[in-house]
Amino acid sequence: MSDVYAARRALLRDRCAAAGNAAALITRPANVRYLTGACPPGAVLLVGPAEEVLFCAGAPTGENDEGRLDEQLRVTVIGAPGGDPAVAAADLAASGRADSLAVEEHHLTVGRHRALHSVAPKLRLADLGPAVEQQRLVKDEEEIACLRIAAEIADQALGELLESILVGRTERHLALELERRLVDHGADGPAFPTSVGTGPHSGRSRHRPSDRRVEEGDFLSVCLGANYRGYRCEIGRTFVIGTTPASWQIELYDLVFAAQRAGREALLPGAACRDVDHAARSVLDSAGHGEALAASTGHGVGLEIDEDPQLAPTAMGKLDACVPVTVEPGVHLPGRGGVRIDDTLVVRPEADGGPELLTITTKELLAL
Amino acid sequence: MSDVYAARRALLRDRCAAAGNAAALITRPANVRYLTGACPPGAVLLVGPAEEVLFCAGAPTGENDEGRLDEQLRVTVIGAPGGDPAVAAADLAASGRADSLAVEEHHLTVGRHRALHSVAPKLRLADLGPAVEQQRLVKDEEEIACLRIAAEIADQALGELLESILVGRTERHLALELERRLVDHGADGPAFPTSVGTGPHSGRSRHRPSDRRVEEGDFLSVCLGANYRGYRCEIGRTFVIGTTPASWQIELYDLVFAAQRAGREALLPGAACRDVDHAARSVLDSAGHGEALAASTGHGVGLEIDEDPQLAPTAMGKLDACVPVTVEPGVHLPGRGGVRIDDTLVVRPEADGGPELLTITTKELLAL
Repeated sequence: MSDVYAARRALLRDRCAAAGNAAALITRPANVRYLTGACPPGAVLLVGPAEEVLFCAGAPTGENDEGRLDEQLRVTVIGAPGGDPAVAAADLAASGRADSLAVEEHHLTVGRHRALHSVAPKLRLADLGPAVEQQRLVKDEEEIACLRIAAEIADQALGELLESILVGRTERHLALELERRLVDHGADGPAFPTSVGTGPHSGRSRHRPSDRRVEEGDFLSVCLGANYRGYRCEIGRTFVIGTTPASWQIELYDLVFAAQRAGREALLPGAACRDVDHAARSVLDSAGHGEALAASTGHGVGLEIDEDPQLAPTAMGKLDACVPVTVEPGVHLPGRGGVRIDDTLVVRPEADGGPELLTITTKELLAL
Repeated sequence: MSDVYAARRALLRDRCAAAGNAAALITRPANVRYLTGACPPGAVLLVGPAEEVLFCAGAPTGENDEGRLDEQLRVTVIGAPGGDPAVAAADLAASGRADSLAVEEHHLTVGRHRALHSVAPKLRLADLGPAVEQQRLVKDEEEIACLRIAAEIADQALGELLESILVGRTERHLALELERRLVDHGADGPAFPTSVGTGPHSGRSRHRPSDRRVEEGDFLSVCLGANYRGYRCEIGRTFVIGTTPASWQIELYDLVFAAQRAGREALLPGAACRDVDHAARSVLDSAGHGEALAASTGHGVGLEIDEDPQLAPTAMGKLDACVPVTVEPGVHLPGRGGVRIDDTLVVRPEADGGPELLTITTKELLAL
């Protein structure tokens, strides 16, 4: 695997050189992880001017849970205990006779930027922009394999919950139980805080679980995901509690299901991100739910749970093959609740069967 | 409570005006929460030039789980869906004829700073520095009451774990069980990722729980904390598994205990932070463990789990009364394991009985 990381760093170094920068300083943790395979707290990566060097905040020995970092990562590891690793990196870049250093202006704070300038005043600080994020967009098959396992784990955790008694339990306890099951099945942890919404809370995006208990007749919406080797997936489902859904519940569910299916079916290489959003959004819009909709109906996933591309009305750009995204429209009626259906899929060409669904739990309206 | 927040904002506004700035833009989430009582994801707070305004990323209606945000917080709430709330705030400040805006350069990214300048080119962007962090240092009695409850919850969760069978269980499962118990006892969640280290992993700071199982003869070190209404505490203890600790275990435990006690006893209003660190560190240093020690032996807690003051050799400043801090020296012997003992205490004058210990679980070496 370490060849993969070396190849990613080589690509970044080439892009950087093409833009006239001798070196790049990577501070965003997910980007450091993408380029090295690990990211101890506070670590930053200096790519060029000579070797790649990982600067760690806390561990001068560069030792990790799994052993010596430099041997694992095949990069030089230098500790900067007590100081800012980014400042130590700029110092080294300047002493290595780099005249310019590209930094991640979308992540680096103004304060750290000033500190870099102050330690190396002759070094020109350029903007790397989202160069690493762009490299991260299209996943290789090993990354997709991690996402596939993450999705399997989430499906298992959700499936087990559905077999248990739900009435009378609180949102918080259901969320905790799901997170425990994720870890039981091999997740490194939840991919994001698990959301469980009952009754009037159902259908809300990122609802924070409360002490409300599940009641007969409720909608129950659940959104969870596993983190497997750093890769994060997402699944959201809505169920009805009791034997017979009310007619408004069936209508609303069918509507959101139709919107979500339209979004999924629009996922093809070359499709504009805004068109995928429009496919899902217009179904809800024409039923009169346009105003209450979230700003996006989906987003990329990978080393972060919410990364590019965004599926939103103002999004630029087109989808490529091997880009994993969520499709997650929802409607929430204040005071009544609502429905949200969320899958993680990988964009694939039609010749390969179209989008690959990673989260396979049924999307029928189950009455539990 | 909303009067408390208004008073905090008024103090900030005065300080800001004294520094010649008509308005301040607060972007760091814990600071926004300190000044308003809430912090929806992405929200930023504009203090001055006229009213205080909270700009939210996602919710144009300013609605929260508990109802309308503006009514709860007594600040104007404006949604900036799709855009950067900080940019919307700068736009408003400029149109309100502010000529300067103080920003948190230690939190704001270079990219956002450029975006603010671009939307309001006539607005001078000054540095607010850690003004809000300084206001947050000394806690009022309501804040300390939240920390006291957080500590009680952590003590309860830890106490229950000690009554259960430990041998054969993995670090990850013990950590998850502790987190579930925190929530069972009323925490909003863990204050930070719970750390459980067994055998050779014991005594490590922030060890990430692995699949290693507890064995007879192991040291077991546990570090956990509860988040109660946003306030976060920390407790760390080390136990020995089995009936009779080995003599090296007893010696090491006694040494770390002596260091931790020395640190606790040094906590008095007016004491230099570096002297508190030295009190604990010198005990371990003179026993030959100096080189392997962490950069600090304690830190402030509050709305963040690691905030000022730092108890470290290079720390500046002195302790005040009503400042809650951790005292957490530890020694880890590579390949063998080690000991870490961690308490949360509030600095109090000697006349009031000296430091108030919030985490009261016993620090005897228990054989479990």
